[in-house]
Amino acid sequence: MPSVGFFVSVEGIDGCGKTTQIRLLVERLAALGVPTLLAQEPGGTATGRLIRSVLLDARNHGIEPMTELLLFFASRAQNLAEVIRPALDAGQVVVCDRFTDASVAYQGYGRGLGAASVQQLSEVACGDLQPDLTLWLDIEPAAALARAGKRESGGSAGRDRMESEALEFFLRVREGYAHTHADQPQRIRRIAADGSVSEVFDRVMAAVFPALEARGFVVRSN
Amino acid sequence: MPSVGFFVSVEGIDGCGKTTQIRLLVERLAALGVPTLLAQEPGGTATGRLIRSVLLDARNHGIEPMTELLLFFASRAQNLAEVIRPALDAGQVVVCDRFTDASVAYQGYGRGLGAASVQQLSEVACGDLQPDLTLWLDIEPAAALARAGKRESGGSAGRDRMESEALEFFLRVREGYAHTHADQPQRIRRIAADGSVSEVFDRVMAAVFPALEARGFVVRSN
Repeated sequence: MPSVGFFVSVEGIDGCGKTTQIRLLVERLAALGVPTLLAQEPGGTATGRLIRSVLLDARNHGIEPMTELLLFFASRAQNLAEVIRPALDAGQVVVCDRFTDASVAYQGYGRGLGAASVQQLSEVACGDLQPDLTLWLDIEPAAALARAGKRESGGSAGRDRMESEALEFFLRVREGYAHTHADQPQRIRRIAADGSVSEVFDRVMAAVFPALEARGFVVRSN
Repeated sequence: MPSVGFFVSVEGIDGCGKTTQIRLLVERLAALGVPTLLAQEPGGTATGRLIRSVLLDARNHGIEPMTELLLFFASRAQNLAEVIRPALDAGQVVVCDRFTDASVAYQGYGRGLGAASVQQLSEVACGDLQPDLTLWLDIEPAAALARAGKRESGGSAGRDRMESEALEFFLRVREGYAHTHADQPQRIRRIAADGSVSEVFDRVMAAVFPALEARGFVVRSN
């Protein structure tokens, strides 16, 4: 049964500008009078926050990629039942900071678990629910790492090796997003994430507005 | 590829006497000179202990059955990679306090998520690894609750209602074990768990010894 709400997920590699664009999107929707809920994962629920702390802590104990994947889906299942489905059933627009496409890209491609395993998990954990619209903020991994690097503290001895590993990892993650985009071009819209914040936000709204208009959430004012 | 070790899981509803029988089994195997490892879930690894604390804490926050199921599999995936597979590859006998059959019984039947969902998760999380032998300590739920009740502190106002709910829950869990046993009678051996500790342990050894003998782990002394 289709929900009466509208489910938007925002995706992209670390440093793509996702957090800023999500904040602007939620603010704009609120200004337009659209009932909007921001959902985050992991961590959008009390249980999700406990799981998030395990994810952060367990990286110090050699967490397995499969364990990580299952923990993300555990948090997602809780978020779906407790936050996302009720909001959609109440007719809200839900904007979610990452969803299953991130697991396909990060764990399926980045960690090498394969997209099929992630899809199989998704069927069990999320049933047939998927975003109505996904915005993929696409950026060159080298550019994203440069952005993310500015947020971190100064250099270290192993930094070159770590950056090189990170670059290879994010190239695989981006490949994952590109595959999913090629498979489902109607649902997943590629947004070029280079340029200024306002340039990117114009592209975001150009993708979101017509979809919301078609569902009667907003009316073009001119 | 079959492992060179031997994987025994011990199953049953709470109060079936599983902990005692596992302790006796591990002690007996050690006395027989069999290289044995006791694996527990959740909590057999550092990451598993973090996940276990989430399971305990999240029950206060209305954890969803699907979230609970995914957390058990997250702990299991870590346990498999970090503890169980290496021990099996090194030729050890691994005795595991519950495994996937518990998820089928508890979450699939007890919580109503269905056996098929649990099996689908198991394929992703555990691949083709399953116990060589599973001991199902079968007991009437009413008798198990009476045993478990003795370990708990005194009565409370809502106790009758809680006990009645617990009884219905454990009847479904037992039904789950019974279905899996009927499907795979060669792997899953039903052990009547009524009678004294030593009577039950005789039944346990009668199931375990021939299997270990067939694999060359023990030699009959008479």
